[in-house]
Amino acid sequence: MSEIPFLLIILDGLGDHSYTELKDRTPLEAANQKNISKIKSLGAQGLMDPIAPGVPPSSDTAHLQILGYDLTTEYFGRGPIEAIGEGIELEEGEIAFRADFGTAKVEDNKAIVVDRRAGRIPTEETRQLVELLNKEARFIDGYEFKVVGLTEHRAAVIVRGEDLSYEVTDNDPHNVNVPVLECQVREEAKEKEKAKRLAELMNKWTIKTMKILEEAKLNEIRKKEGKLPANVVLFRGAGIMKKLPTFYEKHGLKAAGIAGGALYKGVAKAVGMALIEVQGANGMPDTNIKGKFDAAKKALSSYDFVFLHLKATDYYSHKGDPIGKSEFISKFDSNLSILEELFKDIAIMVTGDHTTPCDRGLHSGEPVPVLVSAPSIRRDGTKIFSEREASVGSLGRIKGSDVMKIVLDMVERTVEFGTRPSPRLITYMPLELKPLRIS
Amino acid sequence: MSEIPFLLIILDGLGDHSYTELKDRTPLEAANQKNISKIKSLGAQGLMDPIAPGVPPSSDTAHLQILGYDLTTEYFGRGPIEAIGEGIELEEGEIAFRADFGTAKVEDNKAIVVDRRAGRIPTEETRQLVELLNKEARFIDGYEFKVVGLTEHRAAVIVRGEDLSYEVTDNDPHNVNVPVLECQVREEAKEKEKAKRLAELMNKWTIKTMKILEEAKLNEIRKKEGKLPANVVLFRGAGIMKKLPTFYEKHGLKAAGIAGGALYKGVAKAVGMALIEVQGANGMPDTNIKGKFDAAKKALSSYDFVFLHLKATDYYSHKGDPIGKSEFISKFDSNLSILEELFKDIAIMVTGDHTTPCDRGLHSGEPVPVLVSAPSIRRDGTKIFSEREASVGSLGRIKGSDVMKIVLDMVERTVEFGTRPSPRLITYMPLELKPLRIS
Repeated sequence: MSEIPFLLIILDGLGDHSYTELKDRTPLEAANQKNISKIKSLGAQGLMDPIAPGVPPSSDTAHLQILGYDLTTEYFGRGPIEAIGEGIELEEGEIAFRADFGTAKVEDNKAIVVDRRAGRIPTEETRQLVELLNKEARFIDGYEFKVVGLTEHRAAVIVRGEDLSYEVTDNDPHNVNVPVLECQVREEAKEKEKAKRLAELMNKWTIKTMKILEEAKLNEIRKKEGKLPANVVLFRGAGIMKKLPTFYEKHGLKAAGIAGGALYKGVAKAVGMALIEVQGANGMPDTNIKGKFDAAKKALSSYDFVFLHLKATDYYSHKGDPIGKSEFISKFDSNLSILEELFKDIAIMVTGDHTTPCDRGLHSGEPVPVLVSAPSIRRDGTKIFSEREASVGSLGRIKGSDVMKIVLDMVERTVEFGTRPSPRLITYMPLELKPLRIS
Repeated sequence: MSEIPFLLIILDGLGDHSYTELKDRTPLEAANQKNISKIKSLGAQGLMDPIAPGVPPSSDTAHLQILGYDLTTEYFGRGPIEAIGEGIELEEGEIAFRADFGTAKVEDNKAIVVDRRAGRIPTEETRQLVELLNKEARFIDGYEFKVVGLTEHRAAVIVRGEDLSYEVTDNDPHNVNVPVLECQVREEAKEKEKAKRLAELMNKWTIKTMKILEEAKLNEIRKKEGKLPANVVLFRGAGIMKKLPTFYEKHGLKAAGIAGGALYKGVAKAVGMALIEVQGANGMPDTNIKGKFDAAKKALSSYDFVFLHLKATDYYSHKGDPIGKSEFISKFDSNLSILEELFKDIAIMVTGDHTTPCDRGLHSGEPVPVLVSAPSIRRDGTKIFSEREASVGSLGRIKGSDVMKIVLDMVERTVEFGTRPSPRLITYMPLELKPLRIS
C-alpha cells in the first residue's frame, strides 16, 4: 500500500487577465516559474469553476466547496468561520457577525457612515468600548449579545438564543457617505420568520449601541483630541455556528491547515483540520512565506493532507496591481524550493479559490487554473502554468465539487465505482472488515 | 459602478463542418473576419452545448435556454412563440399551432399530401378560406377554434377551452406523397388525459375543415384554373400560451430584441423584451442587415442587453450551401464595422443557437463556437473565430444554461456567491436596501 501525502496550495484569487504592463501576460504567466515548472513536468493542468461557470465565489464558499463540502446543506455563513479563525470559541447555534467599529453622523434620522474604521482606533480603545457594550447592551428581548474585540477597529458580534436564522443582510453599507442599512431578511431566505426575528433584534441592537457609544466617555475624549469617535458597530456576514462533519470523517484523510488570514484559519478549523500556527503568517504580502513552507514540509511527514493558503495574490488583485501580484507569485515560486526534494513522492495541487482580475478589483466568475502532480498521474505537454495553457491542459475543465474526488484518486485512495474495492485500497473501506470466525 | 451594455448576436445554425469546396475549412473559418478579429483580440472563445452534448436543439428551445429559461418548467411549445412573433395576440392558456394550407387527395380513406403550400396560394385567397373556416368550423364539442391567416399559405390555429394539454403530435407529415397524420398524445406527455382531449378535437377539426374546404367555392375556381386546391390545414408545433417571468425580472437587465424571423421575434416577445422593428428585416439572405446593425447600435445606448438575430446562416445550412453560408458570414463581418467604435466599451457574445452542418441539412448535437469580449475579461491567444480554435479557447466548454451567468459576470453585475455583494455591485441586489431609521 502506498502512502502519498497530499499538498493543496491555494493562492487566493490566483486567476487573472493579461495586462500591457506585463507584456500581455497574466500575473501568473509573467511570474518566475522555476519550481512551478518542476511540478508541472510531473503532472498536468486544467481549469476549475469553483462553483459554476460565470459565478464569482466568495472565498469561504469556494474553500468549502473545494474541500468537498456541500454548500446547499453545509454552508452556514461567513461570520462564524471568521470568528473561529480569530480564535473565538463558538457554541453550536450561536449567531456570529464580523464587525467593525466605525464613525457615523446622524442626518435626517439616518446614520451616514463617515469612516468604516473609526480612524483605525487602536486595539486597547476598542476593548474599552467592547466592555461597555457587553455591560449595557447585553440583553435585548431576552437574547444575549456579546462583542469580542479583535485587532484595531475589528470585532465579532455574537447573538445567543432560540429560533434565529442567520439569513439576514448587513447593516454595513460597505462604503462611506451612505447610510447605515436596515438589517433585513434576505430574499432567498428559507426560514423567513426566524430571520425576521434576528433582523429586528439586530436593528434594535444597532440603535441601542449607537446611543451607548455616542455617550461613551472614551468617544468624548477622542472628539476633544480631534479624532473620529467610534460611535457605530457595522456588522456583516451573518452566520450560525454549526458542527460540520470533519474532513477526516468525509474523506478519511488526516488533515492540517496553514494560513495567515482569519477566514482561512477558520475554514481549516470549521472542517476539523489541525491548525498549524506559523509565526509571522499574516495573510499579507509580508507574510512569513518561508515559515509557512517549512511548516508544510514538516506537516507532510505526519498528515495525509496539508492545506497551505497564501492570501497576498488576492490582496494585489483587489488593489489593482498586476505587477505586485506577479512578483508575489515569483516569491512563492522561489519558496517552493523548500519542498523540492518531496516533489516526486507527494501529490500536489496548486490553484486559486477564485479569479480576481486586477483590472476589475473584484472576484469574477471566470475559472481558475489548476496544476496537479502525483507519482502516478497523466502528464500533459503544456508549456507554463497559465490561465491560457490551462484551457488546453489534460486535466480539462473541472468543478470545485470534483476536486476531492480527484484528490483521493491522486493519492490512490479511491474505491472502484460500482464493483469492489481494489485489494491495495481495502484499508480505506468505510466498513471495518472482519475475519470469518470458523468455529 | 460600471454600466456595460451587452450585445448578444446569434447567427442561427452557425456551427458547421469543413468542406473541400472551402479548402477544408468550415463556413465560419472561410469567411472574412476583419471585424470579428477585432472583437476576438479583446476576448476569448469557447464551445457551447446549447442543451447538452449530442442533443440537437430546436431554435426556440436553444434561444430560451441561452436566455436563461428553464426548459423543464418554462417551455410551452413552439406554436404560440411563432404566433406572437407574427403579431397575433394570445391569451394565457390558449393552444396555438403553426399551420399551412396544403393540398391533399383522398385515397383508401387517407388524405395523401400533394403539396404542403397549396401551390403557394396567395395571401388574399388564404384569407377568404380562413374566414370560411372561422364561420363554419368555429366550435367543436364546445371548444372554440380560430384560424389566423399570415402570408401566402401560412396560418396559425388557436384553440380555446378548458382542460387541454398541448402535448400532441402534428397532423403535418412534413413531406409529400404521404398521408396526413392522426394527431396523437405524445409519448412523454405529462397530462395524458388533457392531451388526449386536444388530439381528438384536432382530428375532428381536420376532418371537418377538409370537408368545408373541399366544397369551398374558391377551391372550385382554383381547380378550374388548373391550380391546386387548398383543401387541408396541416398543423404543427402545438403549444400553450404562458406568461413567462420577463428577462428583466430574471436578470435585472432591460432588454431589446432585433430579429427578422417570426420565431425569434416571438422569443423576444415571450421573454418580455422590447421588440425593435427594422424595415426589410425578414430572416432571409436579403435581410436588411445594415438596418439591423444600425438599430442595435442605437439600442445599446438605452438598453442593458440587446439581442440581435440573423437567420440566413441556418437557411444556407438547410439548403446545403456552405459557400453561401460563408459569404453571408463575410457580409455579417463587414456590417460589424457599424459597431466598431463601441467594441471596447461594451460586452459582446457572438454565437449560434445550434450547429446546422450543411452536409447534413439538419440541426446536429455538436457544440457551437462562442466568441466573447468585454472591458474586463480573460483574453486568449486563439487565431481566428472557428469551431476548431474554439475548442482550445480559454472560455472552455460551456452549456447554454451557463450563458446568462457568464453574461452577468461579463457586465460585472454578479453578486458574490455566499456572502455579501461587493459595494460596487450593491445596486443589483434583488433586495432593496433601506437606510436604518434610527428613531
